[in-house]
Amino acid sequence: MTLIREMSSGSEFVGFYLLREFEVKQTNGTPAKDYFDIVLCDASGQLSAKYWDVSPAEKSLFAPMGLVKVQGVVQLYREKLQIKVNRIRLAVEQDGVAIADFIKAAPIAAADLVHTIQRTASEIADAELRGLVDYCLAKVGDKLSHYPAAKTHHHNYYSGLAYHTVRMLEIGDFICRQRPFLNADLLRAGILLHDIAKTEELTASLGIVSEYSLQGRLIGHIALASTWVTEAALKLGIPADSPKVVALQHLILSHHNLGEWGSPVQPQTAEAIALHYIDSLDAKLQMAEDALGALPEGEAWTPMIRGLENKAIYRTVF
Amino acid sequence: MTLIREMSSGSEFVGFYLLREFEVKQTNGTPAKDYFDIVLCDASGQLSAKYWDVSPAEKSLFAPMGLVKVQGVVQLYREKLQIKVNRIRLAVEQDGVAIADFIKAAPIAAADLVHTIQRTASEIADAELRGLVDYCLAKVGDKLSHYPAAKTHHHNYYSGLAYHTVRMLEIGDFICRQRPFLNADLLRAGILLHDIAKTEELTASLGIVSEYSLQGRLIGHIALASTWVTEAALKLGIPADSPKVVALQHLILSHHNLGEWGSPVQPQTAEAIALHYIDSLDAKLQMAEDALGALPEGEAWTPMIRGLENKAIYRTVF
Amino acid sequence: MTLIREMSSGSEFVGFYLLREFEVKQTNGTPAKDYFDIVLCDASGQLSAKYWDVSPAEKSLFAPMGLVKVQGVVQLYREKLQIKVNRIRLAVEQDGVAIADFIKAAPIAAADLVHTIQRTASEIADAELRGLVDYCLAKVGDKLSHYPAAKTHHHNYYSGLAYHTVRMLEIGDFICRQRPFLNADLLRAGILLHDIAKTEELTASLGIVSEYSLQGRLIGHIALASTWVTEAALKLGIPADSPKVVALQHLILSHHNLGEWGSPVQPQTAEAIALHYIDSLDAKLQMAEDALGALPEGEAWTPMIRGLENKAIYRTVF
Amino acid sequence: MTLIREMSSGSEFVGFYLLREFEVKQTNGTPAKDYFDIVLCDASGQLSAKYWDVSPAEKSLFAPMGLVKVQGVVQLYREKLQIKVNRIRLAVEQDGVAIADFIKAAPIAAADLVHTIQRTASEIADAELRGLVDYCLAKVGDKLSHYPAAKTHHHNYYSGLAYHTVRMLEIGDFICRQRPFLNADLLRAGILLHDIAKTEELTASLGIVSEYSLQGRLIGHIALASTWVTEAALKLGIPADSPKVVALQHLILSHHNLGEWGSPVQPQTAEAIALHYIDSLDAKLQMAEDALGALPEGEAWTPMIRGLENKAIYRTVF
Amino acid sequence: MTLIREMSSGSEFVGFYLLREFEVKQTNGTPAKDYFDIVLCDASGQLSAKYWDVSPAEKSLFAPMGLVKVQGVVQLYREKLQIKVNRIRLAVEQDGVAIADFIKAAPIAAADLVHTIQRTASEIADAELRGLVDYCLAKVGDKLSHYPAAKTHHHNYYSGLAYHTVRMLEIGDFICRQRPFLNADLLRAGILLHDIAKTEELTASLGIVSEYSLQGRLIGHIALASTWVTEAALKLGIPADSPKVVALQHLILSHHNLGEWGSPVQPQTAEAIALHYIDSLDAKLQMAEDALGALPEGEAWTPMIRGLENKAIYRTVF
Amino acid sequence: MTLIREMSSGSEFVGFYLLREFEVKQTNGTPAKDYFDIVLCDASGQLSAKYWDVSPAEKSLFAPMGLVKVQGVVQLYREKLQIKVNRIRLAVEQDGVAIADFIKAAPIAAADLVHTIQRTASEIADAELRGLVDYCLAKVGDKLSHYPAAKTHHHNYYSGLAYHTVRMLEIGDFICRQRPFLNADLLRAGILLHDIAKTEELTASLGIVSEYSLQGRLIGHIALASTWVTEAALKLGIPADSPKVVALQHLILSHHNLGEWGSPVQPQTAEAIALHYIDSLDAKLQMAEDALGALPEGEAWTPMIRGLENKAIYRTVF
Repeated sequence: MTLIREMSSGSEFVGFYLLREFEVKQTNGTPAKDYFDIVLCDASGQLSAKYWDVSPAEKSLFAPMGLVKVQGVVQLYREKLQIKVNRIRLAVEQDGVAIADFIKAAPIAAADLVHTIQRTASEIADAELRGLVDYCLAKVGDKLSHYPAAKTHHHNYYSGLAYHTVRMLEIGDFICRQRPFLNADLLRAGILLHDIAKTEELTASLGIVSEYSLQGRLIGHIALASTWVTEAALKLGIPADSPKVVALQHLILSHHNLGEWGSPVQPQTAEAIALHYIDSLDAKLQMAEDALGALPEGEAWTPMIRGLENKAIYRTVF
Repeated sequence: MTLIREMSSGSEFVGFYLLREFEVKQTNGTPAKDYFDIVLCDASGQLSAKYWDVSPAEKSLFAPMGLVKVQGVVQLYREKLQIKVNRIRLAVEQDGVAIADFIKAAPIAAADLVHTIQRTASEIADAELRGLVDYCLAKVGDKLSHYPAAKTHHHNYYSGLAYHTVRMLEIGDFICRQRPFLNADLLRAGILLHDIAKTEELTASLGIVSEYSLQGRLIGHIALASTWVTEAALKLGIPADSPKVVALQHLILSHHNLGEWGSPVQPQTAEAIALHYIDSLDAKLQMAEDALGALPEGEAWTPMIRGLENKAIYRTVF
Repeated sequence: MTLIREMSSGSEFVGFYLLREFEVKQTNGTPAKDYFDIVLCDASGQLSAKYWDVSPAEKSLFAPMGLVKVQGVVQLYREKLQIKVNRIRLAVEQDGVAIADFIKAAPIAAADLVHTIQRTASEIADAELRGLVDYCLAKVGDKLSHYPAAKTHHHNYYSGLAYHTVRMLEIGDFICRQRPFLNADLLRAGILLHDIAKTEELTASLGIVSEYSLQGRLIGHIALASTWVTEAALKLGIPADSPKVVALQHLILSHHNLGEWGSPVQPQTAEAIALHYIDSLDAKLQMAEDALGALPEGEAWTPMIRGLENKAIYRTVF
Repeated sequence: MTLIREMSSGSEFVGFYLLREFEVKQTNGTPAKDYFDIVLCDASGQLSAKYWDVSPAEKSLFAPMGLVKVQGVVQLYREKLQIKVNRIRLAVEQDGVAIADFIKAAPIAAADLVHTIQRTASEIADAELRGLVDYCLAKVGDKLSHYPAAKTHHHNYYSGLAYHTVRMLEIGDFICRQRPFLNADLLRAGILLHDIAKTEELTASLGIVSEYSLQGRLIGHIALASTWVTEAALKLGIPADSPKVVALQHLILSHHNLGEWGSPVQPQTAEAIALHYIDSLDAKLQMAEDALGALPEGEAWTPMIRGLENKAIYRTVF
Repeated sequence: MTLIREMSSGSEFVGFYLLREFEVKQTNGTPAKDYFDIVLCDASGQLSAKYWDVSPAEKSLFAPMGLVKVQGVVQLYREKLQIKVNRIRLAVEQDGVAIADFIKAAPIAAADLVHTIQRTASEIADAELRGLVDYCLAKVGDKLSHYPAAKTHHHNYYSGLAYHTVRMLEIGDFICRQRPFLNADLLRAGILLHDIAKTEELTASLGIVSEYSLQGRLIGHIALASTWVTEAALKLGIPADSPKVVALQHLILSHHNLGEWGSPVQPQTAEAIALHYIDSLDAKLQMAEDALGALPEGEAWTPMIRGLENKAIYRTVF
Repeated sequence: MTLIREMSSGSEFVGFYLLREFEVKQTNGTPAKDYFDIVLCDASGQLSAKYWDVSPAEKSLFAPMGLVKVQGVVQLYREKLQIKVNRIRLAVEQDGVAIADFIKAAPIAAADLVHTIQRTASEIADAELRGLVDYCLAKVGDKLSHYPAAKTHHHNYYSGLAYHTVRMLEIGDFICRQRPFLNADLLRAGILLHDIAKTEELTASLGIVSEYSLQGRLIGHIALASTWVTEAALKLGIPADSPKVVALQHLILSHHNLGEWGSPVQPQTAEAIALHYIDSLDAKLQMAEDALGALPEGEAWTPMIRGLENKAIYRTVF
């Protein structure tokens, strides 16, 4: 089976893919004819595709996010690769294919990531901080295991949010050992909750974001997570103006560092400073790692990456 | 009695003033001698003052924010007027002076402003929005009547916050009549709550801000008010993600318009746009009106005003 | 007759429309064939259209801004609706259609707007200010009644400029009642003239801007209006450096507030501050109102709007 | 006689100086005593000075911008040199000193500079452009010969404006010879008028700016000069919208290049681009030359210079 | 023979052109057919072209940067002119055409430019500066004669770099005569070397840049040229920290003036200030001159030019 | 002995201190009298001090950076603590005090830091990278052990540069273990050399920077270190354009991330991204740690810190 990342102009193939986007459109000709304007993906990447010879019966068979078997050929169209589908059908049980194999996911299993997150939360020594964190994790429920961390920016895949969180926890623990004056409980709580409201800001399925929610657009994950901490404090009977609650909200609110990047206040505790730079370090390196990982063998430069000051990244090889 | 605003170099005076700031310091000479480094104010303005011949008994008599009777002379020191105090004593009951007469205050009585605010809140037709507003107003309690709206920026005096709110309500009502498509309930609720958490952000007495609180510095009045709405919704049993709650929080969160001005999200409803510009219009005009009002007769230009792009304002006279 | 705003993919229609843009082009095929690349509009919106089967005789019949009768079908082309014209002919007198019915216009009749503007000008108490305003209004002549206020930004339709001016006058009168220290004559004069040179900056017909004029590009409406005041002062025998002339020019020159927004000086009188924020309030709310008004039933978000920090606007409904 | 630039801590001197600033103040002691707070200058620089033992008779003898004979001593006060005046008297005719010898001035005589300017204006081939320039030069009158080009920024001395203009004309002529496609008449007219309204923006005497005028603050020299061209066109019967008038106004309006630097429009003709960079080149180099010229022998770095990105300049010597 | 700049829709032509870009692509149809997607240019401009009826034999005949004879027709495609090639063949010796006639080049012969550059270098009086300059010029070798100064920004043609350098030398000499305090040797050396590493930053042929080199992207011509001066100093035995070496590196490093424009340090010598503004003056005027030169007869406005604040330039004609 | 950090207004003390700054000045009185304007420091902090009763003999005894014994009293002067010295003498051998005990230094011994740095350099597997690093470390010599990393910003004390480097190496090693795709050799080399030229940019003694050098001001440590790599490559016979040399220079040149922060190129390799954020993380946290460490017991907020967005830092305690 041909991986999407390995397709090149002219290659013919048969294989299973995920129907990431699906729309029935009509040609401009007279009479107008139906065709499928679709996006196929697997764990290695995605390509847009057209299926021209649609029969009326086929129109109602497909829907986005389903698995399909496709026979097609790859063509160049306006400088980009595009698939011309010759045959397409839904995958059935006997095909023995599973959606999980066709989506991009973090390199560590979701269950392991969630386990690490919950263990870390349980190890927060301060009972009130631990209570606040547990409340918010519980509120998120199952989304913790599979949500991406962003629509396109970074960690935009299955379990991306949990993976980003776990990696940051590792760095945070290292920095706390290096600098014992830091409040490790607070930094851990901040890392665990800094992006937690992305589960509400984004509408996602299988690690793929389809849109921003109303709360996501009108409130944003930063202010939203701050209200969750208030809610947790109320439910747990912790005064909303206690230094612990305030310090934790401060970490969340300031973690984008500057107003123009979305933070209504700027970091004013050592833990807030640590959180911001650990977040940047992990997110930026992941963007570079993912872009280099997707680079075809033999190429030296990735495409331009918005989150990296719109720069292309060079693969260091020597 | 000489108003502070009318004092000029060389004038001698006797009168009652508010001891806005008070500190005992020591001269550099040998032996060092105690002196009072103080700020005197009345409703017309304020001046720093020195009292050099402090007796040991006097040192413990005074405290900030008390009324005092002063005999002194005005001098020029480093280009600025300064009072040399010759005699000073605490005001006593028989003097018949009241603190309220010595502080700068909004031109409308506090009780009237609070009445207008509460009446407006009670006229919000939507029961849930009305409940959210009432909850927050009740939470603020007495501070609503006397808090200033800022430390130095604008409406920085007794009842400044209430005055700013009432004026904005007037403009808001006019705009809603002009443009009926606007949701008047929502805009009113947004005006009533947009600066409500300044009562927690600032520590103030008699309309004078002494400092920012911990919550003020680490969370800020914008994100803080947003958590109050969440709290209100929880207490009232309104779902935190209902469009009403979200739209009201959006008004609060976006009312500074841009990230660099402190808003984590930008206005995305017509009411949020209205709120921001009504707020700016009222605050900026008040800065100009106050600065021109404090301008000595015959002068054409105010000092530079930070909140007005650091420009001086010219008195238009013809 | 189908309104353009109500057209959807696949719908067939017959009706009258305004030929907003018209060009004869040639296909790429061999031999190349003529076709019409046009834009059709009515008061509800506009769509691009193609007419493929052009006969030689038809090529010279049409011109931009004429009314036509069209029989066609709506198609999707590159994600956007486009009209495929089957038949097209010029409207004739017997059709009983009038251009005025096919263009977007302010919701108040042009004559009423002009009347309000002229009455307000005549009520300016100060004879010299009144003279300066009258001179500039007279200079503009008929354009006052129908010019738009911008190419795309805001009030970009028939009588848009007059409508914007009248609405601002209403707000200005309200603010002057609220704050009597403001010079109402000066503020009115400023509102009347602040955008007056848009009639020279833009080349417009029927409320639709086709291009910027040479003066518009090399001088701009702000500096241009300032020279008109000088011209008026010279003609009326008012010294160009009299405080009235200077204050009025200042209002015009500073009304965009910041240098990066096109104002060579920043507001330095209370009236200039009022003018800027009244202008912003009215223009921004109009953008939101127009965008929401054009939103199809059932949709919640407008497209992104450049003049509103490039944000989409959410329709507040509850 | 000791030049001010050569004074160092501890040096005693007798000499004639210009009384650049003069104010009678009072000491803080009891009883307060009068003293003179003054600034003395000569062509080499300036220093602040105090005269403590003022007799009542002396108080009314002096005024700013008069020549005085001073006997004093130089002291260090708060890291800066300051003169302690022991004796001071007005200069009298018999002293044989002339104000012109005590002020900083351009290195070329005012009359020569004015002659060059007028000759250049007369050589503009295009009669209309020449007329516009002549009108504005005539309007300025005598100020052309002695006005500075700025308060502190650059060319802030006697004939500074004329000197800056003449130097720019030289560079402009060179560039026009190098690039014949440029319209030399237009560029010359632009150079002659680009800063001409500084004569109205600033209030200056002997090359020293005391303040900005009302027009200077509310309109600014850029928009002001643009209105002068309109005035000239009206008087000369040239249509205000003729390309020549518009192009000349464009040069003036755009010569600061960016909105944040004060230009309401950006350069859009080759001549406007040339004008901006010739202006920058001459102004910036003059700042560097003046700062290096004022640098004491043996020092390598000037103070920080606001107009040069707030950088100090290093004297290149090898 | 039809110049590319003179082609208009519908015109048929036969002539010689340079094959600036060449790629074999395939149509979307079934079966897919080969076609040439090419760019043809001559000294007057360039146009994209398609050749549809490619025979298998033709596919291997062509390569970028070769001369070809073309018979074709000009068509409009998506608002832009495009050539439909009917016949194409390689130019042969007998055709008597030379590549040099088909590329855009500086208006002065390369040999003359190089001669001026080398003569100027040899006239630098200071032996060490002269040595540093000579070393760098020698390092560049032949590229000095033909390299462009940029990919698209300015002087983007054959000998563009040398032409830019020579013009700047002329202005520099003029300014040094006008201001004798400037170190003419240093300024000349700075002009000669400021863009010298563009020969390594860019990969160019016949004045056309194909891409940025690895050094160009990771180091940039500014820091790169600075290391060349270090290399030269080491080879010539001049201490790397001698004021001459440092001052010359400073000119190179600071010539973009601001950090956001690529300079790690800002100008801090008079010569560095001169260099920056001379560079800007020459580059900006050249952009305007080239854009106006390419403007078809009768048009008044060039396209928008990125390097000129993204403004279009108006042709001043009167 | 009283630590400077523990001094408060009114406390009298005797002890040894380092004479960090020393100047003889004169009072303004008549006759002027000599006094010492000095700064005393120990490892805990510094205070300015005055010694008024200077005898002629004493004037020549002292010099900056010597150890002195002082008897004095602490006073408040203009809101700040200041020492009034009653007696002062040079420390002598018998006093048994060592300069090293009076200066602020990294918490790890210089020898240990240097050892770690050299061991890390020797463990770079790639021989060429190792050679480049070794060359630069050798060039710096002894300064490596004691130089600060900045004048005031961060790590501004004895061994500050080495301490910063070692801490970054620790983080770098952790990140390379976390993300094996990173080139650990290259990142280590980048960390070792990124600030290496601060030893030339700054003039420092005992960890205290007195000024910036000529190279520091005109070239800066970023471009300077890049030339050192070129020099190393030349000496070691490694081509200056080899990918290793280029990649290492890229790390140095881009480590400030943005042009406005001093980097002429932006990070374009994963290792360059890692370097920038590791550098920020370590520097910012050190600023916070040092400021909190210097905060008197019982205080919650540090002064504003320029390098931390000019924010004060709150001590998290719960």
